[in-house]
Amino acid sequence: MSGPSLEDFSVGETVESNDVYEMTAANIAEFASQFDPQPIHLDAEGAVRELFGGVIASGWHSLSATMRLIVRSNIFAGAPVIGVAVDNLRYLQPVRAGERLRASATVLEVRPSRTRPERGYLVLRVVTTRDDGEPVLTQDWTVLVPRRSEGISQRDS
Amino acid sequence: MSGPSLEDFSVGETVESNDVYEMTAANIAEFASQFDPQPIHLDAEGAVRELFGGVIASGWHSLSATMRLIVRSNIFAGAPVIGVAVDNLRYLQPVRAGERLRASATVLEVRPSRTRPERGYLVLRVVTTRDDGEPVLTQDWTVLVPRRSEGISQRDS
Repeated sequence: MSGPSLEDFSVGETVESNDVYEMTAANIAEFASQFDPQPIHLDAEGAVRELFGGVIASGWHSLSATMRLIVRSNIFAGAPVIGVAVDNLRYLQPVRAGERLRASATVLEVRPSRTRPERGYLVLRVVTTRDDGEPVLTQDWTVLVPRRSEGISQRDS
Repeated sequence: MSGPSLEDFSVGETVESNDVYEMTAANIAEFASQFDPQPIHLDAEGAVRELFGGVIASGWHSLSATMRLIVRSNIFAGAPVIGVAVDNLRYLQPVRAGERLRASATVLEVRPSRTRPERGYLVLRVVTTRDDGEPVLTQDWTVLVPRRSEGISQRDS
């Protein structure tokens, strides 16, 4: 398997998404009908809209869009992004149709496994923002990453 | 808006999902192609399959399916489930085609807002399980819930 090793990451480095995910009335309704069938996402009840002044996207839709952005940022150069944990996830702003989301991942921690010498963990602060730069979601991912074996760099092989 | 108030919940009570979400080769591929386009979810590279012995569902797919199960459990009686945070999310087991997921939510904490007398927060431990009862995902949601106003029960009105 190709891709970077734990040793290739440094605390503080940031990767930005190369593309954007645009929320639309159609994809908000489609996601919600499959996974979060509530009026607040489906426009089914005018009264409920008053809460946020209109239909908002499911939080799980914005989170899934964030995964797409991070995968396509190529931070792991095509190697699998194997999540083991998510902590400190905060919904900061509702997301509406017409907004275009971007995401960044900043390395908070680089931690070799104490029990498995061939692996380690990265903790990444993942922030999802709107076009105006306002963060809408923030979360910390713990991701499993292989360690470089026996001094041979996987990037060199 | 109808639906329960903070005062209607007690620490320790549990709601189970009424239905199941079945993972299939088709819905795993469809979700992954939209939100998590990695070979490990898409069967595009045989070599990658060796990691888990086969294609596995995107973690975000299992999480979104969990949201569907909780919404359909009717824990909030049709009132919106307004998430503000997710903590302690752990991916415990990979999820594969043919597995049927269920979810439960247990009340960990009932907390009035210190600044807004009309609202409060529930902390729910949400656990997603397979047919054999094995947990595949666990997470703690903090959800905004209205408080009963001026002694009038919303359930009575």
